[in-house]
Amino acid sequence: MSDNDPAKWNLALNNARNLQEDVGAANVDIEIVAYGPGIGMLKLESPVGARIADAMKANIKVMACENTMRGQKLGKDDMLNGISYVPAGVTEIMKKQGEGWAYLRP
Amino acid sequence: MSDNDPAKWNLALNNARNLQEDVGAANVDIEIVAYGPGIGMLKLESPVGARIADAMKANIKVMACENTMRGQKLGKDDMLNGISYVPAGVTEIMKKQGEGWAYLRP
Amino acid sequence: MSDNDPAKWNLALNNARNLQEDVGAANVDIEIVAYGPGIGMLKLESPVGARIADAMKANIKVMACENTMRGQKLGKDDMLNGISYVPAGVTEIMKKQGEGWAYLRP
Repeated sequence: MSDNDPAKWNLALNNARNLQEDVGAANVDIEIVAYGPGIGMLKLESPVGARIADAMKANIKVMACENTMRGQKLGKDDMLNGISYVPAGVTEIMKKQGEGWAYLRP
Repeated sequence: MSDNDPAKWNLALNNARNLQEDVGAANVDIEIVAYGPGIGMLKLESPVGARIADAMKANIKVMACENTMRGQKLGKDDMLNGISYVPAGVTEIMKKQGEGWAYLRP
Repeated sequence: MSDNDPAKWNLALNNARNLQEDVGAANVDIEIVAYGPGIGMLKLESPVGARIADAMKANIKVMACENTMRGQKLGKDDMLNGISYVPAGVTEIMKKQGEGWAYLRP
């Protein structure tokens, strides 16, 4: 997620939920990686904060890019509780594809 | 296709045509999957309806997401003739990547 | 890169630099492919021209789609010095994924 657009954030969350419903939550691993202008999805004041909490309860991993956070002077105190962190969102996305994960960019 | 933007719809159709011209239509399988706000690409009143018909004649598969249609209260009568349907666009995109297809998100 | 949006162009360039910093420039090959409305990223008057030059110095390959150039009546004289060209951007992106490259669409 690299867009600063709550409609996109909701779409990504819909995608994740639909995928779990369609194939069964036990049969798919899902990660949402927020970076660049998309980092707002995971800030404390995010309009989709409640949905992020629900997604994490449903075993969807939600990750913030620490490169982006540094660039925007954000600390973990500025971010939603319970999310995960990766040093660079772009590396995470590349690595997962290398491990055979599909990439979806809504 | 998850954008509600006719310029993007034309770009996706250009991509498909260019790919067929570049490598030979017999040498590549192409699917366009419309979901979320992109579903308008495949509605009866779509401004790219004629191009969709041409694409299907050129053996490009065009698929609408039934999850999205349910959410937007759309039936098959509301959609362009001759298109295909998948239960969940996101699953289709994930599965195809698992089978070795490339993913292009214009 | 298929968006006509300098903010996206900068984001793509940030992604490339962050990836090199995170995994080491010697350990990753990066290509930026500009096509469709994204071709402006590589025109002579591009607002990110200096960053493109820096990226190429850092061994990031930067490629313009000749299909798009033909459609927009652009010649190589209209484009930034030192960039590379591919007959069709879409084919390049598909081929690289077939060779195991990850795809990132910021």
